[in-house]
Amino acid sequence: MPVTPHLSPTERSTIRRGSNRARTERGELHAVLDAGLVCHLGIVVDGAPRVLPTGYGRDGDTLYLHGSSGARSLREAAEEPEICVAVTNLDGIVYARSAFHSSINYRSAVIHGRPRQVTDPGEKWRALRVITENLAPGSWEHARQPNKRELAATAVIALDLTEAAVKVRTGGPADDPEDVEANKAWAGVLPLETRWGSPEPSDDLAPGFELPAHVLERGRPT
Amino acid sequence: MPVTPHLSPTERSTIRRGSNRARTERGELHAVLDAGLVCHLGIVVDGAPRVLPTGYGRDGDTLYLHGSSGARSLREAAEEPEICVAVTNLDGIVYARSAFHSSINYRSAVIHGRPRQVTDPGEKWRALRVITENLAPGSWEHARQPNKRELAATAVIALDLTEAAVKVRTGGPADDPEDVEANKAWAGVLPLETRWGSPEPSDDLAPGFELPAHVLERGRPT
Repeated sequence: MPVTPHLSPTERSTIRRGSNRARTERGELHAVLDAGLVCHLGIVVDGAPRVLPTGYGRDGDTLYLHGSSGARSLREAAEEPEICVAVTNLDGIVYARSAFHSSINYRSAVIHGRPRQVTDPGEKWRALRVITENLAPGSWEHARQPNKRELAATAVIALDLTEAAVKVRTGGPADDPEDVEANKAWAGVLPLETRWGSPEPSDDLAPGFELPAHVLERGRPT
Repeated sequence: MPVTPHLSPTERSTIRRGSNRARTERGELHAVLDAGLVCHLGIVVDGAPRVLPTGYGRDGDTLYLHGSSGARSLREAAEEPEICVAVTNLDGIVYARSAFHSSINYRSAVIHGRPRQVTDPGEKWRALRVITENLAPGSWEHARQPNKRELAATAVIALDLTEAAVKVRTGGPADDPEDVEANKAWAGVLPLETRWGSPEPSDDLAPGFELPAHVLERGRPT
């Protein structure tokens, strides 16, 4: 399937429940992925599902995941005909007048596809850069880059962002008119904010080592 | 398998990579679950993995998930011989002196098991209460509880917390001695803090409706 400006829904990536929350622009997929830090990778092992939290990075319309080349899970994932990756960013709790309509505000993406083991040295290098930069922007240039041994110890898989579903919920509760009328319960949103705390230098950091700008000025997580 | 004070590792729930991060107390599993708001549910559909973010609640050693009884995914999950549920709480980014040792501080749980569709009315009621209370503590008593129509429209599945793996990473980077000696890069942790913002009343909330204590005093998310 070609990558298009719009997400091309397949049968399984078509959002049925809450379809008013579905987003169809590729840019909205990118925004959800770029705002996240950790994805949940789903694979099938011996016929059963397995879900693993892991870091990732995006380069254009390719998602990269990495892991130890000794780790069974990533090795298994690379050999699978299909994997699924979900990224979920939480924005708040929706307090409705009824328990039934209580909800969560979020931005989420679910991607399906055939994984590809990255073996080309140039692509692997770029993949590790985008994974590092998604986790800790500025670190690729600041920290020591991987040596041969570390590259060999790292497995990278690529997933095309062709088949993806994006859902975004915003705003207050969708209460029943009778409950609004009854006016017996509070209704609204309690926003969930994530932000960076104060950097904590390592115990073994040389005294006086100045906090670099890429850590000091890291933007607010979204 | 009986529920024991210690997590009983099976072949697939035994942590191999980073086994120093493995936690084996049942209370630590409970703490990870109770601190989270959303889980990622993994199921197998037509032989391929599918990962879905969803709310959940814990009652003792049972995890409950709910969804629309019209939603295909939860219906499919209930019919599966196995599901997998992951809950991941992020605590910070670990800046290492090498890109290779960059990491994330987190508390995560991965649970495997056979799902059980909850049909007993009493258990379903309790399940919806714990799911609501995990999302929005105090709402079950404050808001209108489900009526018959809403109960029928809600599907609940239960998962025993018998087979689970818990991993926790804390602290600074584990840098190579040569990199510590070289002293060329900053090393430490940038904590990721989540907190509640200011409550935002619904547009259609009656003027003067007082903010209830369970929203006003909600504790800091962890």
